[in-house]
Amino acid sequence: MSQDNQEILTVIYKNLYRTGCVSLVGTALILSVAFSPQKTLAQSAYPLQWEENLPGVWQAVVNQAGPHNFVDLAAKKPRAKAIKALGQTSFPLEREDIYAEIRDGQTYLRLPLQKGEQIYGLGLNFKSIQQTGQVKRLHMDHYGNSDNGRTHAPVPFYVSSRGYGVFINSTQYIDIYVGSAVRKDNPNAPTPRDRNTDPNWSANPFSDAIEILIPAEQAELIVFEGNTPLKAVQRFNLFFGGGVIPPKWGLGFWHRTPTLYGDQDVMQEIAEFEKNNFPLDVIGLEPGWHSKSYPGTFEWDSERFPEPSAFIRKAENKQVKINLWCNPYLSPESTMYNALNPLSASHTVWGGIVPDLNLEAVRTIYGEHLMEHEVGIGVSGFKIDEVDGYDHWLWPDVATFPSGVAASQMRQTYGLQFMNLVTNLYRQRNTRTYGLVRANNAGGVALPYVLYNDQYAHQDFITGLINSSFCGVLWVPEVRSSKNAEEWLRRMQTSCFSPMAMINAWSSGTQPWSFPEVYEACQEVAFLRMQLLPYLYSTFAQYYFEGIPPFRAMVLEDDYRQPPATLAGELDDTSNPYQEAIRKENTSQYMMGDNLMVAPLFAGEKEREVILPSGRWYDFYTGELVGNGEVINVAPPINQIPLFVKNGGIIPMMDPIRQTSEWTEDTALEIRVYGTAPGTFTLYDDDGASFDFEQGEYTTKLLDAENGTGKLIDLESNGPWTYGEINWVFMSKN
Amino acid sequence: MSQDNQEILTVIYKNLYRTGCVSLVGTALILSVAFSPQKTLAQSAYPLQWEENLPGVWQAVVNQAGPHNFVDLAAKKPRAKAIKALGQTSFPLEREDIYAEIRDGQTYLRLPLQKGEQIYGLGLNFKSIQQTGQVKRLHMDHYGNSDNGRTHAPVPFYVSSRGYGVFINSTQYIDIYVGSAVRKDNPNAPTPRDRNTDPNWSANPFSDAIEILIPAEQAELIVFEGNTPLKAVQRFNLFFGGGVIPPKWGLGFWHRTPTLYGDQDVMQEIAEFEKNNFPLDVIGLEPGWHSKSYPGTFEWDSERFPEPSAFIRKAENKQVKINLWCNPYLSPESTMYNALNPLSASHTVWGGIVPDLNLEAVRTIYGEHLMEHEVGIGVSGFKIDEVDGYDHWLWPDVATFPSGVAASQMRQTYGLQFMNLVTNLYRQRNTRTYGLVRANNAGGVALPYVLYNDQYAHQDFITGLINSSFCGVLWVPEVRSSKNAEEWLRRMQTSCFSPMAMINAWSSGTQPWSFPEVYEACQEVAFLRMQLLPYLYSTFAQYYFEGIPPFRAMVLEDDYRQPPATLAGELDDTSNPYQEAIRKENTSQYMMGDNLMVAPLFAGEKEREVILPSGRWYDFYTGELVGNGEVINVAPPINQIPLFVKNGGIIPMMDPIRQTSEWTEDTALEIRVYGTAPGTFTLYDDDGASFDFEQGEYTTKLLDAENGTGKLIDLESNGPWTYGEINWVFMSKN
Repeated sequence: MSQDNQEILTVIYKNLYRTGCVSLVGTALILSVAFSPQKTLAQSAYPLQWEENLPGVWQAVVNQAGPHNFVDLAAKKPRAKAIKALGQTSFPLEREDIYAEIRDGQTYLRLPLQKGEQIYGLGLNFKSIQQTGQVKRLHMDHYGNSDNGRTHAPVPFYVSSRGYGVFINSTQYIDIYVGSAVRKDNPNAPTPRDRNTDPNWSANPFSDAIEILIPAEQAELIVFEGNTPLKAVQRFNLFFGGGVIPPKWGLGFWHRTPTLYGDQDVMQEIAEFEKNNFPLDVIGLEPGWHSKSYPGTFEWDSERFPEPSAFIRKAENKQVKINLWCNPYLSPESTMYNALNPLSASHTVWGGIVPDLNLEAVRTIYGEHLMEHEVGIGVSGFKIDEVDGYDHWLWPDVATFPSGVAASQMRQTYGLQFMNLVTNLYRQRNTRTYGLVRANNAGGVALPYVLYNDQYAHQDFITGLINSSFCGVLWVPEVRSSKNAEEWLRRMQTSCFSPMAMINAWSSGTQPWSFPEVYEACQEVAFLRMQLLPYLYSTFAQYYFEGIPPFRAMVLEDDYRQPPATLAGELDDTSNPYQEAIRKENTSQYMMGDNLMVAPLFAGEKEREVILPSGRWYDFYTGELVGNGEVINVAPPINQIPLFVKNGGIIPMMDPIRQTSEWTEDTALEIRVYGTAPGTFTLYDDDGASFDFEQGEYTTKLLDAENGTGKLIDLESNGPWTYGEINWVFMSKN
Repeated sequence: MSQDNQEILTVIYKNLYRTGCVSLVGTALILSVAFSPQKTLAQSAYPLQWEENLPGVWQAVVNQAGPHNFVDLAAKKPRAKAIKALGQTSFPLEREDIYAEIRDGQTYLRLPLQKGEQIYGLGLNFKSIQQTGQVKRLHMDHYGNSDNGRTHAPVPFYVSSRGYGVFINSTQYIDIYVGSAVRKDNPNAPTPRDRNTDPNWSANPFSDAIEILIPAEQAELIVFEGNTPLKAVQRFNLFFGGGVIPPKWGLGFWHRTPTLYGDQDVMQEIAEFEKNNFPLDVIGLEPGWHSKSYPGTFEWDSERFPEPSAFIRKAENKQVKINLWCNPYLSPESTMYNALNPLSASHTVWGGIVPDLNLEAVRTIYGEHLMEHEVGIGVSGFKIDEVDGYDHWLWPDVATFPSGVAASQMRQTYGLQFMNLVTNLYRQRNTRTYGLVRANNAGGVALPYVLYNDQYAHQDFITGLINSSFCGVLWVPEVRSSKNAEEWLRRMQTSCFSPMAMINAWSSGTQPWSFPEVYEACQEVAFLRMQLLPYLYSTFAQYYFEGIPPFRAMVLEDDYRQPPATLAGELDDTSNPYQEAIRKENTSQYMMGDNLMVAPLFAGEKEREVILPSGRWYDFYTGELVGNGEVINVAPPINQIPLFVKNGGIIPMMDPIRQTSEWTEDTALEIRVYGTAPGTFTLYDDDGASFDFEQGEYTTKLLDAENGTGKLIDLESNGPWTYGEINWVFMSKN
């Protein structure tokens, strides 16, 4: 196709777009070029046609979105009103810069990238925040220590520092070149340099494009405009129904007991938490609750748990919820086996069948079983393990599913689909659940699950927590075991400043007091989390109502302007033969809600740098001014995780209760106010347990502080209100 | 399709196979099932039909081999006579156990795997030898520290311990599940175990299949029968034309000088080798010989090399050959640029264009340029860099090539194609070349190139050397720099027992004497290599004539029966949460030729275990008996790399010359004989430089030793014979 023909085609497209017949004709045109060889991308590619279906949300298809796509699978519909409330915008890119092409049965996409533009997201990364220059194949898997696209949430969504997001609505394995590949026809292509003599030679020259390869002849692209990166993320989250508000107990302390614990061991563990005065809201049972496991039966072991209902009631009497580990693969000894065997995949996982969750019959049989044996007797939720990888455990891509959905696409979504199945059971009972999952993906924002894995590198855990904010998932830096008391405490501190405060002692049998020398400090931070629950709960309400991630990257803050520093690489013939520059990023500092900045320390560190966004910032513990838009060094006592509050930041707190069951009517509030600027905070409340808030049954009040006085202003009052006496504390003198 | 229909289909196939119309009808049948959803593999798959085109070589297609396949690209034709000489065999598998299916535009293949069967190969792995239980996606790339299929030679060929090999003749990225995935319809599926209580629970239950996924609706499978794994490898190698015999100088010592060395620096370096009495046959120039590099011009830098021809003649006067570093991507300042720019890929590499080597015009222009500027003035060969990866440097899979060949398939073969282009230039001059390359693939066996990379882990280098024997490639454990003298010596020792003895000082500027405290030991091992050249040259002749890899895995030896030991894994909630068994393999012991076993030591080791194949084995240095089919411990002096010779093993050696130019007529031979058994060895000779040996111009003589006397028996005498006086040395007393 000549350049002239290409121009004519573009004109035809523009006219067809106005008349509304673009998608049909588009299909025909695409097919007409699909089998013509010897075309370069520039010749046979054509610009996509965009439709603004919601304010600031533009959609374009190549043929169609394709079967088994994320939007079709989504648990919730877009929150149109909330998206609209984010304001009117315009298409954030040059439409002519976005090209598509179908070739060799695959879809090729090209999107523009500007010099200096930073790209975030593309799934749950654990090493890096900025993704520019990287190449990924988005593929569900246990994270393998490299940000190559294989991860527990390979969400095909990226956010630009320029304030827009791009989502590829496809559950295929997607290859994405984030400004790594330089085209010949790129007018911005850098001049080649001579490595022999030019010290400015770079192994990674600038590319002006993000290029994408989808192994299917169809795809949908969705662009989310935001003006800021955070607004783009909000639109993405709201498009998939907005974030979750966990039940109140879900934000208390969690403890998972060793695999083979029986009912009496568990009750004993609960008693020890009480005796040691340590917060406890949830006990998680590991595989041993199943009569057989790996593969599991989803039936209680009659020796370890002879009377499951009675056991759950006993725990409830201690105000403790029970969560159950599982993976969805079924043992031949499960009573579901015979019914589900013909409705499952061609391959097994550890000998367990893999039910095809696309089939309604499967969801009915599985759901009824779970309702009868677990959900219906009061189990609070599940930990859904091994829905991610590794390749050598899960069904292979050669497997078949009775529904005809490709094995690879099932790999991308199995976690999503099982979460959805379970969550619907809880919806039937109008009871919120909160659980764990090892595989999530686009649309998971609306499902009450927190991701975890087996990797256990503490610094990576925090980088993962930061990255979770770009892809609509939650991440827990859980605590298992530690080499020493310092590491134990550092891990406990970050777990308490995450979506789920949890010890996972399934194998180690650790307890909060396993390192007595730091036990008081562990207690301190766990109770601090409990005190912060009014703030944290309102922060999750923001996740639901506005799509704002409760734990989030600094680069999502308007006032944070710290480009990642690139250090010149040093030539080394074995460790750095291409003298690649080293990107220095702030991968361990994040926001919890609007006002609180967390800058954890890791074992072995006595001090650290903290990058303050512009404006004045204050020490959470003392209220003292620590700086203004600068890099500071902090060396706090070991029992304090470094926490900072922005000027005018309001932090509502309650008394240090041990269990959220104590968070009832007339809970006294201490409202801390930091700095000198006026500030507001929307305090949210509801029944803490049901889905009634989705019908408007909740209460919000505006906390309004200025010049040393605070006011409570009613906003919405359609639901419960837990709080009684209110005490305003102005923490800062300057 | 019902089970009955499947049976009918199989009968139809069998009849069609007899009448010879299977492939056409096969296509139609395949297409008829390609779009039927809701089929499991077992239902819509059909057994392949095999044709024995050469003795012990069976071929079967799914539709057809497909465009740009390895067989079409091969530099040489199958060596039918040599294959026939390996004897008559029968199809090594149950034909009914090999299934194919086309689904979603992809080809699915299933091959059988028996309990205890070991699978080797599937590309150049650096950590493991046994591949059973692994999952790979064969993808050309710089090795990334995991045997996941991304490597410098992702050859789609595997060898079974049962004595057959399977080759997938496709340049697509191939997914392969090596006995990792268990099907429901597998009659050998293991009974699921209860991980809660059964200590024999395994994270990796037995699978009876190797399953393969090719992202194209076509493929060719080739099965090589061998009775033994080595014979299967031989057939594979001979099918691609047999191995290479390097020029004699190629087996001497190589040294690569720092990047910016000019002609005088190089002559000075050559003089220093002479002064220090260290072997030297080849000097390799790094990027600085180009006028511009990364991307390169393939034109000499006028300051560093003002008179290239004169420089090469000067080096030749010192009996030193010149090898040139390059990568094939062209700088805008190359005189080839304007002609090749329209014939190159859509994307650049470091700003250099990527010429489409499928186009004859490209090969002509490129070839003429190389002939004029490099080959024609006496350059001995090239080091072809960066044809492997990484993804963020090379053209992306979204790129297009003017020939219409997919970018991914070009990625798999670019190294092969550039080697072929260069080798053909040398063929035109009837001059052998020997060089380096960073990307090889199936068919590379016939091309005179040795693989290398930047990874530099010494133990992995040796495991790579071992694995090279399964996929028809050569690998060099080159020496760059070292932390200390011990490491330097250990690396020098293994480099001298590899296809290429080489220091690569491009960045470090090291020299053999960089660590004076071990210089004598380095000299010793380098001269020992020179002494062994008659043995090594004959060993390469075996590679050419019989397809036997010169450096090879112990598991390719008939008498080696050491299954990899599997140690029970220890449960650890972070490092081994699935309590996976640990496979203990012998990854650092290999054969050089038929008689010499190498068991190197690494820095920090004073002693090591050596697994002796059955029969009596002898110390190379002393001739003493070391054991018989047992595991021994050796702790030699640091200047000796542990070497062992089998009973009856004959090692022909010459005087310790410094340069192969001294290996001329009347070279004295010392023929060492080890042990007490009778033995023979075929000593090969030719002109050492031209391709005349391919026309039969070579000489072979049988060295025949028995009871303390040796005889030389003429076999073929159509070419030069270098040797004069012969001295038989019987090394062993018992």
